[in-house]
Amino acid sequence: MKAKLDEEYVQIDQVDWQPFPAAFSTGGIRWKLLHVSPERGAWSAIFDCPAGSSFASHIHIGPGEYLLTKGVMDVRGGKANGGATAVAPGYGYESANSRHDQTAFSVDSEFYMTFTGPLQFIKPDGSTVAVIGWQEAQGAWAALAAAA
Amino acid sequence: MKAKLDEEYVQIDQVDWQPFPAAFSTGGIRWKLLHVSPERGAWSAIFDCPAGSSFASHIHIGPGEYLLTKGVMDVRGGKANGGATAVAPGYGYESANSRHDQTAFSVDSEFYMTFTGPLQFIKPDGSTVAVIGWQEAQGAWAALAAAA
Amino acid sequence: MKAKLDEEYVQIDQVDWQPFPAAFSTGGIRWKLLHVSPERGAWSAIFDCPAGSSFASHIHIGPGEYLLTKGVMDVRGGKANGGATAVAPGYGYESANSRHDQTAFSVDSEFYMTFTGPLQFIKPDGSTVAVIGWQEAQGAWAALAAAA
Amino acid sequence: MKAKLDEEYVQIDQVDWQPFPAAFSTGGIRWKLLHVSPERGAWSAIFDCPAGSSFASHIHIGPGEYLLTKGVMDVRGGKANGGATAVAPGYGYESANSRHDQTAFSVDSEFYMTFTGPLQFIKPDGSTVAVIGWQEAQGAWAALAAAA
Repeated sequence: MKAKLDEEYVQIDQVDWQPFPAAFSTGGIRWKLLHVSPERGAWSAIFDCPAGSSFASHIHIGPGEYLLTKGVMDVRGGKANGGATAVAPGYGYESANSRHDQTAFSVDSEFYMTFTGPLQFIKPDGSTVAVIGWQEAQGAWAALAAAA
Repeated sequence: MKAKLDEEYVQIDQVDWQPFPAAFSTGGIRWKLLHVSPERGAWSAIFDCPAGSSFASHIHIGPGEYLLTKGVMDVRGGKANGGATAVAPGYGYESANSRHDQTAFSVDSEFYMTFTGPLQFIKPDGSTVAVIGWQEAQGAWAALAAAA
Repeated sequence: MKAKLDEEYVQIDQVDWQPFPAAFSTGGIRWKLLHVSPERGAWSAIFDCPAGSSFASHIHIGPGEYLLTKGVMDVRGGKANGGATAVAPGYGYESANSRHDQTAFSVDSEFYMTFTGPLQFIKPDGSTVAVIGWQEAQGAWAALAAAA
Repeated sequence: MKAKLDEEYVQIDQVDWQPFPAAFSTGGIRWKLLHVSPERGAWSAIFDCPAGSSFASHIHIGPGEYLLTKGVMDVRGGKANGGATAVAPGYGYESANSRHDQTAFSVDSEFYMTFTGPLQFIKPDGSTVAVIGWQEAQGAWAALAAAA
């Protein structure tokens, strides 16, 4: 017999920020991993993004939803380039297969995001750099927390 | 051929609060519906909960995740009764089949939640009052927004 | 650290058929529960449906997919009533919130189905008889297997 | 307002087999794509696998479930190598992140499988050859059917 999964709670302000891997971001983005779901391959995290920071090009393998709690986030190039410019408080739904060539922060920003499935980081030609899912996120987070 | 779904963006502070149905809450809870996903049966919303408000007894049919951005939320009776007491900023994962007999707010609070599947509101004996999923949430929201 | 879930394998012909609960079917339907997923609330089973058998009225809370390997299955009243009449080998996708007032078998039939989320069995007025998900299915199956 | 998704039905024996892309299989595997789900990134197909055929190394990004209706399928090297050897009628659950370096058929076999998320085809060192999800499957299938 399989058991119902346990509920989880994280007191966010008692968890230290860790640097988000430089292979996938620039400008000093930090994160806190809040949850991973091995069965669905889902994971949730909160990100602290200084003015001028950005994420490397990636595709959302499954749907992702964000709540921007502070600042401004240009998604898919921002509104000026056909994407979205989120201004806190803003909510976004990034559907499965959404390609984010530029996710950039013009001011200090913070957002919470739930991911179903991995992020596929890509080169300009679409070839794969890395597929980062719950397991890789959990491993990276554990290594960062241990080193801190 | 089926198309990739569109991305969505909601400027949260440009959407008016609506009263959450009194059949499922007391004390003046208000909400903004941010997204519904017909295929997965998922939906996302933000809730404004005055001091003294609470949600009626319910079961989470699928997993739900919340970000408490303001205030205090007692889940499953609160920490004093074996549940969790979330204090902003707090994150919670409510696993599939979690039963919430009491979700109460002792101070003015606000939280964002992503739901996969419906809420099954129940009587004390466990019998079903109503099953409220993306379709019911969307219908209720549209009616409230039209009446406002 | 959470672990990757284990793979599972079931040798179907080494599992005995059990009667499907009479509260939810008539005519001698039997089943084998093959898998439950506590995190997603998903479950999978194979059903043996004699000529003249049928399932009680229900709503699929999440999407379900079936492979009819033998016989004929009238879904949503059958093709004559605007539904589908599946003839083996047939595949069907029943989207979230699909209401099945009649699922009937005119000849001896067998089908395999994957469910995401529960079945909400209902009365003609739409009120809920029972919400049967992975946990209830697992409990019923364990009781049947123990009694056999 | 978003609408409930339509139900779908496929009369499997009225769809012609198409060759499964040689980049991802050897030995003459053929398939029929039955369904794609853009929102969840899920897809379902049936595969015809001659004796001696096999799939190239891949990782299941999300959970997959199969029903082997004919023949024998060696998964993860087969039972002799710590994996599973499915013999029809057999059911298998391949959890998210399952790595399948060898999926081979010693006799003529057929199986139906539901995938959540893509298959990540990989080289022996784990680097990515291609990420094949609902959109790539749909595109490949449409091209094959048009050319047939």
